[in-house]
Amino acid sequence: MAKKPTWVVDKERGKRAAAAETLWLFGLHAVRDALANPAREIRRLVVSRNAADKLSDSIAGRGIAPEIVDPRKFPVPLDPGSVHQGAAVEVKPLDWGDWRALARGDGAGRSVIVLLDRVSDPHNVGAILRSAEVFGANAVIAPARHSAPETGALAKTASGALERMPYARVGNLGDAMEALKSDGFWMVGLAEEGAEEIDVIAKRHAEGHVALVMGAEGPGLRDRTRALCDELAKIPFARDFGSLNVSNAAAVALYALTRG
Amino acid sequence: MAKKPTWVVDKERGKRAAAAETLWLFGLHAVRDALANPAREIRRLVVSRNAADKLSDSIAGRGIAPEIVDPRKFPVPLDPGSVHQGAAVEVKPLDWGDWRALARGDGAGRSVIVLLDRVSDPHNVGAILRSAEVFGANAVIAPARHSAPETGALAKTASGALERMPYARVGNLGDAMEALKSDGFWMVGLAEEGAEEIDVIAKRHAEGHVALVMGAEGPGLRDRTRALCDELAKIPFARDFGSLNVSNAAAVALYALTRG
Repeated sequence: MAKKPTWVVDKERGKRAAAAETLWLFGLHAVRDALANPAREIRRLVVSRNAADKLSDSIAGRGIAPEIVDPRKFPVPLDPGSVHQGAAVEVKPLDWGDWRALARGDGAGRSVIVLLDRVSDPHNVGAILRSAEVFGANAVIAPARHSAPETGALAKTASGALERMPYARVGNLGDAMEALKSDGFWMVGLAEEGAEEIDVIAKRHAEGHVALVMGAEGPGLRDRTRALCDELAKIPFARDFGSLNVSNAAAVALYALTRG
Repeated sequence: MAKKPTWVVDKERGKRAAAAETLWLFGLHAVRDALANPAREIRRLVVSRNAADKLSDSIAGRGIAPEIVDPRKFPVPLDPGSVHQGAAVEVKPLDWGDWRALARGDGAGRSVIVLLDRVSDPHNVGAILRSAEVFGANAVIAPARHSAPETGALAKTASGALERMPYARVGNLGDAMEALKSDGFWMVGLAEEGAEEIDVIAKRHAEGHVALVMGAEGPGLRDRTRALCDELAKIPFARDFGSLNVSNAAAVALYALTRG
């Protein structure tokens, strides 16, 4: 048998590394939601006696044996200052599968999705996942690189939404936008220089599939991302200074796009 | 002359302590905004050579002598991980003066204000100050205790809004609500069990003064706060699970209340 080319070996090694990759989710809320999510592969559950009592139903439902530990010597590699409440799970990142299928949803009614162009702050992405869930979006899609990765900090700020709202990472956001456009999504970029206010655009596109496209604070939308937007929307400001936090802007735009 | 009673001595000591109290603001953006704010009392300005160059206009405009330091040995007491970018100022907390006068504003047009019932996370309060500024609110009012204090972390997430949007702390929020009601403010509490959707209430109160009243995530509005609300509003949810981050909920509610 011929020797595999180096690039194939590298690719296979990368895949094995990704398969082995795990992260720690912490805090009672995040751990309970992970236990409740059948799609979440759990490697270890580390809890204090007290946390085990609080999570007893979830632990029984999952059928996993907890490792009971002394909360003062919590043996889990977390960032200093992480409020773990005596509960942590080592998990695999979620595999959301086919992001185009997720974006389209079940085909009943219109789809709204969120595209994040290099939003790297986990607190902002966590809050956006919550808003996406609350306002009925089908998925949040971001490039694999320069986006907030799935971490314990993101899970904590997502307050459960990470387990339920698809957060799909794609190789190239521009290519994903082109695919989604061919699937019938209208691309609405949010930008200060937007020509029209978000609720005007929302009314015009109350029926069709819409993707809300957001850039990071500061850099905003990259050139190709902006060029691929069908139109740019702005949120009306009362004053000519100041700016919205990116997750706050996303919440307002999702509210405007989905309240009909 | 009679000896002062103990409580008077204590009160005076407390006042002196408060007068001496300072905090450090850090990061180029926060330092630039503090330098630009004539109401901000600045004790020290500590900058790297590089940051001094970037802030040269602001430093010249303020007429303050910077202490130039080695950024690798930044001699300022900041929390680990604080992204100071080689710039920090030691400042006094802002004194916003009469909060009732601030809430009423200049008397031209309607006033919208935000009341925060024990929102203690500085990132959330920082984001809410930004949204309050953008949507034209007159003030954000919170109880002195159990609210996020004015800190460098709050200033950084407020991204300049802390220097411009009044963040007034009152002794007792319920008493403040009663005073504001007598000044003509309609109290709209945000709560999941709200009887009507926020935009319906917004339309009904498009003319009068409105206070948006928000509780902390989890505990929500306290009993007296809730009882003092004139009505409770909800943000419409597409799904029957999930929840909004408190700053995201505030942004949506302020957008609904102010877009007319």
